[in-house]
Amino acid sequence: MSNIAYVNGEFVALEEATVSIEDRGFQFGDSIYEIIKLYNGKLFKLEDHIQRLFNSAHQIRLDLDYSKEELKELTQQVLEKNKNSERKEAGGLYIQITRGAAPRSHSFSSDLEPTVIMYLLPAKKIESEIREEGVTAITMPEQRWQHCNIKTNNLLPNILTSHRAKKEGADEGIFVTEEGMVTEGTSSNVFIVNNDKILTHPADGEILPGITRELVLELAADKFNVQEKKFSLKELYQADEVFITSTPKEVLGVIEVDDKQIAQGEVGPITKEIHKLYQNYIEEFKTRA
Amino acid sequence: MSNIAYVNGEFVALEEATVSIEDRGFQFGDSIYEIIKLYNGKLFKLEDHIQRLFNSAHQIRLDLDYSKEELKELTQQVLEKNKNSERKEAGGLYIQITRGAAPRSHSFSSDLEPTVIMYLLPAKKIESEIREEGVTAITMPEQRWQHCNIKTNNLLPNILTSHRAKKEGADEGIFVTEEGMVTEGTSSNVFIVNNDKILTHPADGEILPGITRELVLELAADKFNVQEKKFSLKELYQADEVFITSTPKEVLGVIEVDDKQIAQGEVGPITKEIHKLYQNYIEEFKTRA
Repeated sequence: MSNIAYVNGEFVALEEATVSIEDRGFQFGDSIYEIIKLYNGKLFKLEDHIQRLFNSAHQIRLDLDYSKEELKELTQQVLEKNKNSERKEAGGLYIQITRGAAPRSHSFSSDLEPTVIMYLLPAKKIESEIREEGVTAITMPEQRWQHCNIKTNNLLPNILTSHRAKKEGADEGIFVTEEGMVTEGTSSNVFIVNNDKILTHPADGEILPGITRELVLELAADKFNVQEKKFSLKELYQADEVFITSTPKEVLGVIEVDDKQIAQGEVGPITKEIHKLYQNYIEEFKTRA
Repeated sequence: MSNIAYVNGEFVALEEATVSIEDRGFQFGDSIYEIIKLYNGKLFKLEDHIQRLFNSAHQIRLDLDYSKEELKELTQQVLEKNKNSERKEAGGLYIQITRGAAPRSHSFSSDLEPTVIMYLLPAKKIESEIREEGVTAITMPEQRWQHCNIKTNNLLPNILTSHRAKKEGADEGIFVTEEGMVTEGTSSNVFIVNNDKILTHPADGEILPGITRELVLELAADKFNVQEKKFSLKELYQADEVFITSTPKEVLGVIEVDDKQIAQGEVGPITKEIHKLYQNYIEEFKTRA
């Protein structure tokens, strides 16, 4: 069964879903997006994702032509159109909104009609073996722009860093500023555990405020000493545990950074415990009405 | 007569020219571009633009499926298809090449087939009155990534800065680093004249190596003391003359920066002289066989 995409008011097969070459999303990356995880056909943390989408729109001065309720209603229509798709079970809903199509010009008028697209992405499953053994990362100089809190489609720096990490045999690339401070991964937030303290970079312009990051902060706060506080590359190397978070990764242990083993080179007990809390939360979500 | 665009081997009316919503250019800004000025149906500095396109491709590890000769041949076909278009007389040829369409993933394989599009843009004429009177600029913090030498479609920072400049009544936004050094404009290179010395930022990762910038450096070198050397915001404010360069702007005097008048608030004599040299070069190009 073909995957049905929503494009500007119409439902079309993904293979035939297109946008104008004059779309500002295509020519300028003048565009924002979200990916919302699906569990048993239900959108996880829908409210938070829609809120972040609105925050991103506000920050790039994009007037969405939709209310939050209308966008949420639209997500349901996309699910309905794909009701037999296996992507609904464990995939994700991709939403991208651009400033619209117009004759090429850096400047833009506020009355352009935004381009809205939605479609289902396949599941991105991390094998349980990888979860148990942990993953590796390398660090790279932070060279992105200074508004990484906005989830835009200007993703080339992330792509190139991720590509280099893969090429060097690592699973993730982690950005480090000129001052030697760790910001985040190319598609994850980074946490360290140090003497029973859990640290992650504060949600400022240097990182994306990950929805998983936020949930992990909430879940961990009941049992652990958690702080949103910058940490250095040296602290990363010397941490008792390192883990990264994102919607597909959930809570994933990092056992090696820049060819240096983290502690004993195993996924740590606190990482495991937090992942367990996360999984319980998901299970509870799945069974909720 | 409709504008005919080239999209991946086919010629179609611009209004019907589309790309897949899975194109990496659309989803990631994983894409590079050039705009080549047309004078009397001839592409100005074609060789330099194609060379820069290849440099950009190399830097983002994009394997173009075309040789330089093939791309140049393609530009001629686009001109031929639009032989009655008035855009040929003083407009520009837009070329955008993306890494191609593929199921969404940060990582990419090197055997994707790039998406190649070309079409003609209308003339962007600067009125002679504006040329004579000069333009205004405001400065903004340099917040872009650190590879501004690559001409990619990750243009959101430029767009937002340009938008803010326009909103504050200025014609151009100029980036200034945390260290107080001037890099370039949102769509131009910046030059200052100080005690008969002409300075512009060196062509490193912080600026786009503008084709007009390069030509101005060549043309000016015969008569003036020209240096590729960083200069500060203070030097910009206190300059005898300030001008900006780009393909549509050519050599354009700046008479005010951040509400501060530059020298006497008039387009300076050296700016005028260099623009004259530039115009002579264009006239010579137009009449060349």
